[in-house]
Amino acid sequence: MTAFPPSLERLVQLLSGLPGIGRKSATRIALRLVGSSEPECAELARAIVAARANTRPCSACGSLTEDDPCAICRDARRDGGVLCVVERASDVLALERTGRFRGRYHVLGGLLSPLDGVGPEDIRLTSLVDRARSGDVKEVILALNPTSEGEATSLYAARLLANLGVRVTRIASGLPVGGDLDLADELTLGAALDERRDV
Amino acid sequence: MTAFPPSLERLVQLLSGLPGIGRKSATRIALRLVGSSEPECAELARAIVAARANTRPCSACGSLTEDDPCAICRDARRDGGVLCVVERASDVLALERTGRFRGRYHVLGGLLSPLDGVGPEDIRLTSLVDRARSGDVKEVILALNPTSEGEATSLYAARLLANLGVRVTRIASGLPVGGDLDLADELTLGAALDERRDV
Repeated sequence: MTAFPPSLERLVQLLSGLPGIGRKSATRIALRLVGSSEPECAELARAIVAARANTRPCSACGSLTEDDPCAICRDARRDGGVLCVVERASDVLALERTGRFRGRYHVLGGLLSPLDGVGPEDIRLTSLVDRARSGDVKEVILALNPTSEGEATSLYAARLLANLGVRVTRIASGLPVGGDLDLADELTLGAALDERRDV
Repeated sequence: MTAFPPSLERLVQLLSGLPGIGRKSATRIALRLVGSSEPECAELARAIVAARANTRPCSACGSLTEDDPCAICRDARRDGGVLCVVERASDVLALERTGRFRGRYHVLGGLLSPLDGVGPEDIRLTSLVDRARSGDVKEVILALNPTSEGEATSLYAARLLANLGVRVTRIASGLPVGGDLDLADELTLGAALDERRDV
């Protein structure tokens, strides 16, 4: 049994460690890279190093940025009275794509997960309370994944934020727009019923 | 609508160009990279450049190698009388994993695909005929994907190899081992019937 050349094997190994990439996809990607031109490979290599070197968490919201504070935190047209709490920087992007939110964000950097050893001090909850307490903030929207960890984190955050005179809300669960009632799982359908509203 | 920082956006773009990676997976991978340590990013960057710089096609079989000719072509214990023709270097690895083949390989580097502008001169068919003609070779096994392009390439190669006094075979199509007859598509089941053998 013969293996790939060592340098290719090493690349496959490193690629397999990336999220969502198994040994087979890693092999496909590595072969594509080895088959492409040296400048193309060098460009990807540089982009990886540059992205890591140039981006850092925004000191205000925790989102990823090249300039601190980030563009959203700097933007005076954004409503500082509403904070939207998300798990990851990519969630900020998803919410921005909706074009519906004009407030600011707070990125927790994770969800509470006792089994994985992630406790309240491991995510940005203290700075959330500090920001909520700062006076400008009128509403905190919890926009965490509707999973058990997301729900637990939402409940925990809501408890921390109680008695600060700030309205605490969370995004709705329900049927996806364009979705099919028939195909929805019972938890989603149940949530859609519970969160029904007047028309 | 705010986008990612430019260096991160660039990385996402480049990653999206890799096989099997869409915009969402590219974003996930880029965020993981940006969230990992600088040495980890540097290691991946170096591995990409090194794999590209150090590996080249074997001058004999066309497989990927760091030393030319490759380990399989150099190995005197391999049977030079049987050539197994495959599309890509990764197919060599797949066949080696079976542990059933002790001959040598010939990597075409592609399949005939007139619609994509891939003609006989674009893949390593001439060198295949040269090797088959060299005298040592007694059998050429065509191990190309059972797709229309693979079949067309097999037929074309078989015609080129006819009259060289070399036996030309192709790998069997049929039910995957451990597969379910009930779940097989009709083409596979048809092939399994056509290629039945005595027990």
